[in-house]
This record gives sequence, structure tokens and C-alpha cells, in this order.
Amino acid sequence: MSVWEKLYSEKVSTLRPSPIREMLHVIRQPGMISFAGGNPDPQSFPVDLFYESASILKEQGKDVLQYGTTEGYPPLKSFLCSWLKPRMGRAITEDELLITTGSTQVVDLLCWAILDKGDLIITEEPTFVGTALTMHNHGAQFLTIPCDANGMLVDQLPEKIEKALSQGKRIKFIYTIPNFHNPLGCTMSLERRKKLVEIANRYGIAILEDDPYAYIRFEGEDLPTLFSLDQSGLVVHACTFSKILAPGTRVAWAVGNKEIIRKMAIFKQGIDLCSSVVAQALVYEYCRKGHLDSYLPNIVDHYRKKRDNMEECLKKHLPLEEVSWVKPMGGFFYWLEMKNLKTADLYKKALQKKVAFVPGESFYPNQNGGKNCFRMCFTFASPSDMDEGIKRLGEAMKELLKS
Amino acid sequence: MSVWEKLYSEKVSTLRPSPIREMLHVIRQPGMISFAGGNPDPQSFPVDLFYESASILKEQGKDVLQYGTTEGYPPLKSFLCSWLKPRMGRAITEDELLITTGSTQVVDLLCWAILDKGDLIITEEPTFVGTALTMHNHGAQFLTIPCDANGMLVDQLPEKIEKALSQGKRIKFIYTIPNFHNPLGCTMSLERRKKLVEIANRYGIAILEDDPYAYIRFEGEDLPTLFSLDQSGLVVHACTFSKILAPGTRVAWAVGNKEIIRKMAIFKQGIDLCSSVVAQALVYEYCRKGHLDSYLPNIVDHYRKKRDNMEECLKKHLPLEEVSWVKPMGGFFYWLEMKNLKTADLYKKALQKKVAFVPGESFYPNQNGGKNCFRMCFTFASPSDMDEGIKRLGEAMKELLKS
Repeated sequence: MSVWEKLYSEKVSTLRPSPIREMLHVIRQPGMISFAGGNPDPQSFPVDLFYESASILKEQGKDVLQYGTTEGYPPLKSFLCSWLKPRMGRAITEDELLITTGSTQVVDLLCWAILDKGDLIITEEPTFVGTALTMHNHGAQFLTIPCDANGMLVDQLPEKIEKALSQGKRIKFIYTIPNFHNPLGCTMSLERRKKLVEIANRYGIAILEDDPYAYIRFEGEDLPTLFSLDQSGLVVHACTFSKILAPGTRVAWAVGNKEIIRKMAIFKQGIDLCSSVVAQALVYEYCRKGHLDSYLPNIVDHYRKKRDNMEECLKKHLPLEEVSWVKPMGGFFYWLEMKNLKTADLYKKALQKKVAFVPGESFYPNQNGGKNCFRMCFTFASPSDMDEGIKRLGEAMKELLKS
Repeated sequence: MSVWEKLYSEKVSTLRPSPIREMLHVIRQPGMISFAGGNPDPQSFPVDLFYESASILKEQGKDVLQYGTTEGYPPLKSFLCSWLKPRMGRAITEDELLITTGSTQVVDLLCWAILDKGDLIITEEPTFVGTALTMHNHGAQFLTIPCDANGMLVDQLPEKIEKALSQGKRIKFIYTIPNFHNPLGCTMSLERRKKLVEIANRYGIAILEDDPYAYIRFEGEDLPTLFSLDQSGLVVHACTFSKILAPGTRVAWAVGNKEIIRKMAIFKQGIDLCSSVVAQALVYEYCRKGHLDSYLPNIVDHYRKKRDNMEECLKKHLPLEEVSWVKPMGGFFYWLEMKNLKTADLYKKALQKKVAFVPGESFYPNQNGGKNCFRMCFTFASPSDMDEGIKRLGEAMKELLKS
């Protein structure tokens, strides 16, 4: 027994590493084609435009090298307060906005502020494994709601909520990824959005609207955010520069009622004091120069082509009688469902053929489903890798179907 | 009652904002001279040299704008593994090092890994209020040990530990700032360092060695780190670029046994996934070009002069029969103790005269002392502000003594 073994907290006994992060060593094997991680394509990064913004390190050096306020770099906050207006339904005030280190931190901070061990969080099933682990570390239990092509089946909520409440459970928030869901790729319909907000209000349950992919829409029209549909202040909206600029900045934000934002900011004081001011200033300068708005269509166009490319490759190489999917209208992911094959078998065979994806089971917070599903990220692989990788995947499926 | 009120976690009921962070609005009053925050002097920032390192955003843009590994940006880790050798006593391996978002995050992560609500942490009394709040948020209780000019009175440890253990308490770690203590300014003697490590080993208690000021030494010789004196792997060493380069980077690190570092890294996955890669890459490039080592003496010289300046001003303006202090040999802080005056009275009067400091009570984790003490940061104020501010402080003291 190590010296640390007897010191560990209870939380360590249920600690699970992120399966996606842990796959990195698999993905890095030579010759491996990966559709696993949700990484943006480095080809989409505005390297030169972002480098331009470095001038702020010189011009405002004494300010941006200093400690910042916990709530965020004021010029960036000010920019976002107005830039967010279209999607938030109104201009945001500075005390409704908190800059965070990645939007993962929004989840962490909200859990600090409202979750006690054993409390319930309602999530879509499946849901994003990264944030589910954040909630799990805070001692959350999960009440899950299935989805179809129009997102969470919100009609199931009242009955499930009533049942949990009657069992004495406390339900703290509903976690949803309404746009281009991770891993499902689906988008919640307007009707369901309205119902969801109504139900949350009826029961006094908060909503965490995790919306990293909102701006990566390939077709169709933007739907109103849950935040904009809500009048009660119960919706915390999380978004990030990771997909609309670059994840290496680790600059993200939360928008919400000023009371909960203030509580989250106080917890953030004890967590990292403030997010990197240097990174925030670089992002701000990029935005101030107008690059965010002018470059974003390039990113969307780039990913639309990649989505189309994956759609084509899937149709070309996979056994269509065995596997089905819904073409996503935005975001980063395809979710594939197989009729007869088990994901575990496919995963093993696929790795032998040097192609990787994330098994569906990882996205089930109660680890009770997805055994015939898997997630494919279409943003990262190059066109030639896309074709070759999906060809290998098709071969793996066909071999398994024969055996 | 707000909609959030009934959702709050238990942790909110004991949540306390950082008094230093909350003083910001006081400090920003026009004409205020502040010795409160522990901010570096912006004049000490290597603005031009740091700006030079921005070239990495162009040259390695596709890499540094991408998600990074949770453990840290590999080139920076590699640099630190060898750069840390002198103070760590040996080269560090990559799995013994974790890059964090500020060294506050080291405290947060260690608490995640080993602290359950109600567990004891041993700290110096007084101790740094920021990290004490991090531990407090995790549900820590504090067993405190007084200090003298040679640091923590470690001889008191065995009896206090035995007593707590006999009461059924679990003691998880000893939190210490051995060099140029915040707020005391004192440095732990070599003899006490050896004893401290021996005692921690005897009882199987971890040590968190928080060492942000180690490199800001004005005179005398470096003493060995607790990490280097320990053979058991029970010491986690925390350090940061905040004082040796710039806090706006928010790049810091933990060094420790690979088992605990691994656990902390898994918790970090759920907290912010990884620290800003952009900020880490800029710091790395600055280091790679040799600026860290070549510029550091400028910072130390700069602060030595400021320390000397404060020493002079204190002697010149304060009523010496009333107030005493120990001249710090490094770091950022003076700790002043008054014979007859109460800090609360002085604080009120000082604010009227537009001069600010941090009252001593803030640094007592059990809020039971320091009522005649206060902390003065000597790094931030300009020379003219230093003189004028301390003059005002002396006047405030003299007026109070007369009344």
C-alpha cells in the first residue's frame, strides 16, 4: 500500500478518468486514424489573425500580465455583453457574465454552488461524458431522459420528476446540450425548448444550457436559447471560444442570473482565482479587431464540407442494412447505431485496423446503454483519412457480420 | 426569496468571499494608496521579452491553439523537469509534474484527492487567506500552529497531532509556506524543515509545500525544500510563474509523487480539462529563450529596493514604541504587530486617510487572532506612494494613540 492510499478522499473511490482523454495513447499510435476526440481541425484555426492580437501583450502588457478580477477581463466581458445579444435575446449586464477556464468550469462551478452529494441532475441520455464526470465527481446521481432527432423527450420529465421527488430526492438542475448534441448530433425543437423551460419553472429546477456548438450551424435557422425563453432566471447558459476560435485559449463563459453568477465567482476565487488574463486579452483583441465575426463563416464552411464528406464516406463504406444515423445540421458529431453488432466487438476490431471512435456506452452516465452505438467526430480527420478510416470501419463491420 | 435560494448547496451556507479580492472596490477609490493585495509591481514585468515569445503563436499555432493534455504543455513540462532540479534536489520526471491554473489550483486539486468534509488540515497561524478559503470550501477544519521568526513552531506538532487523533479526527495534510511566509514574511529554518518532514512521515500525514516566493530572495542562502528533504513521497510542492514572471499567465505547477499527481490530474480533467495552452506556450517560449533565468535577478533587485524602501518608511513614519516587525529576507510582505492599538480601529482611520492594508484577522483560518496585526505588501506601491502611504498610516496610528 502506498503512503497516499490511506489519505485518499471518498471521492477517489468513485473517481473515473475521462475515457476520451485516456484514449489519447491509443489515438497516438502510428498509423491510427481517429474519429474519437472532439478536437477542432487545426486547419480551421485562424493562426495568423490570432497572432496579430499578440500586439496587446506589448501595448497593454502591464495590465494583462497582472492578476485579473475573478469575474473576467473587463474588456472581454464588455465585448461579450453586447456580442451575445442576438442569442441571449437581450444585452447582458456585466454581473450576469462570468469568464471561465473552459466551459467545463461552468459545470464545476454550478455544482459547487448548488449540488450536494446524492442530489439528482437530469441529463439527456446519452450525454457528454466529460461534463458528466465533473458532475459525478461532485457526487451527482443521474436521472436520464432519452432523445430522438428533436432532442430530449421532455414530455417524460414531469412523471420522472414527480417520482424522484416522491422518493425524497432533491433535483438540482437539468443539464442539456440543445444544439448539435454531443454525442447525438440532434437539436432540440422550439416546441420542446418552450416546454422544458416551463417544466423547470414549474418545479423550480435550474437548467444548465451547455451550448458550445451553437455557432457551428450548417443549415437551417437558429433556434432561441433556453436562456432567452426563460423569464425566471433559472437558466445558466454556458458557451466557449473552443469551437468558434480555438480550444487552446481555454476561454469560455457562463451567462445567468446575477445571484448565481456571483456565487459561482466566489467559488472560482478558491479554484483558480481568475482565468488566464493573457489568454483572455488575446481573445479580446481578436474579437475587437472584428475577426470573430469575419472568420467564423470560414470555420462553419470548413466543417460543413467535412460533415458532407463524412456523410458520403459513411454511405459509401458502411453496410447500410446494419447501421443508421441522423445527419447532423451542425456541431462536431455523428452518432451511429448498429442493429446486430456490439460496439465492444467493433471497437476491438477497429483498433486492429487502426481506426478509433468513442464507444457509445461512455456517454451513458448510468452506464446502462449505448452498447450498439458509437460517436464519430467529423471535424478532425483530413479528407483522405476520413475516407480511409471509414473504409476500414466498414471492413471491420462486414468482417464481424460474417463471423 | 430568490429562485436560487432553495437550490443552494450546503457549501454555500459557509461560503466566504476572499477579503482581499473583495477589497478591490475599496482599493480602486481615487487617491487610495494600497498595500493590501499581493500584486507584483507592473514595472517588474518583462513586457517586451514576454511579447517576443508571442512568435510561438505563429510558429506553433496549430499546436498551441488545440486542446492540450491535462497534465500540461509537454515542452513546458520538459523545461520545468530540469529547471527545477536545484530546488527539488534532483531532476523531476514528467509524471511527477502537473501544470495548473495558478497554484491555488494545486490546493483545490489536493483537496479533491485527499480531503473529506470535516478532515483536519494543519496550517501555520496566521496563514494565507486565499488558499485557506479553498480548503474551507472543501469542508476542512483547521489545526493551527503558531510561528516565530524561524517559521512554524514544529515542536508543537506531535502533541497537537496526538490529541486530534485521540479525538478521532483525520489529519490529511500540513499546509506550509516555508519561504517568506504570506503574511508573516518569515522563513522556516533548516532544522525545523527536517523536523517537519520527520513528523509528517511518522504520522503518515502529507505536506503541501506552497512555495511561490522561493525565488524572490534578497539575501542569505536558499534552504532545501521540504520536497527535497523527504524520501517518502508525502510532499506535494506547489510553485508558480506569478512572482517570477507574471500572474496574468496563471501558469503554475505541482511536483509530487506520481501516484498523487495522477489522481490530481484526473480531477483536473473534470475541473478545466487543461490549463490555457496559449498561456503555457507563451511562458514556455519565454523560458526557452533563457529570459526566465536572465530576467529574474532584475525582479529580485527591484523588490529588494522596494523592501528596503518600505523598511525605511516604516522606521521614519511609524511610532516605533507601538509597532514591531521582522524585516523579511524575501517575498512580498511585512507583518506588523501593534502593542495597544486594535487593527479594526486603525483600518477604519486608515481608509479615511486613503491608505489600505489587509487586517491580520483575515489570515487566521479559525478567525481567532491577529486583531492587533496587519499585512503590508511592499511590491506594488510606487516609491512616492510608499512614503506618502506609510506617512498617512503613521498619522492614523498617532491619532488613535492620542484619542
